[in-house]
Amino acid sequence: MERVPVLKIGDILLVSIQIDMEDQVALQLQEDLAERIVATGVHGVIIDISALDIVDSFVGRTLAAIASVSRVLDAETVVVGMRPAVAITLVELGLSLPGIRTALNVELGIAMLGSRETVDVLGDEGETDPAVLTRE
Amino acid sequence: MERVPVLKIGDILLVSIQIDMEDQVALQLQEDLAERIVATGVHGVIIDISALDIVDSFVGRTLAAIASVSRVLDAETVVVGMRPAVAITLVELGLSLPGIRTALNVELGIAMLGSRETVDVLGDEGETDPAVLTRE
Repeated sequence: MERVPVLKIGDILLVSIQIDMEDQVALQLQEDLAERIVATGVHGVIIDISALDIVDSFVGRTLAAIASVSRVLDAETVVVGMRPAVAITLVELGLSLPGIRTALNVELGIAMLGSRETVDVLGDEGETDPAVLTRE
Repeated sequence: MERVPVLKIGDILLVSIQIDMEDQVALQLQEDLAERIVATGVHGVIIDISALDIVDSFVGRTLAAIASVSRVLDAETVVVGMRPAVAITLVELGLSLPGIRTALNVELGIAMLGSRETVDVLGDEGETDPAVLTRE
């Protein structure tokens, strides 16, 4: 079965959805994300949907479910990278993605989450972790 | 045609490969990446292959080509997230991914690139960009 990878970057988890969100894939992603949130203790989840041509009601519900589960686990979810055509279709379908925050791209999403929790973990790690520097 | 999204995060471009790397997809990715490197002026590219079960010689050549093109454009490439089984198969096939640097995960990849160029752009942006803060 195909699986959407969950990437940890500093204080956030990043998910880039590129494959069709069939039932099993969606459930697996929800499970993986919940587990990673608990394991890593992050407070933010960014879901990039820039590869999606279509966001139907199932995908919309999946995103809403992910956001709800994350919220219960004390993590905020931001959906980023929505294409203009997708936004138009969503509204035409009467889907307004309730409870889901959006940003134009990953950087703005990080900034949106960062205003709640600092995310400069990233910059520091690069300079202070000797294990990494010796790999040069 | 399917397309692999290229995400910009601070001073790096992040690509998470999840779909089969057929000829057209690979060429398109190479082109997209080169264009984004020039447009954004980043100095690092991270390619996450944690979703790949198999890395055959074609994918290996594609990664090498991406790394070479990036290098010419003054950006370093790090491949991250390789599964243990993939590493074993690669060596068995006699493919050693020459010219490609690797790291275990995205964070270590960022740190590896960060030791050359600071990446704390991220932490700063979240706190200083008023356009983003007002979206709260």
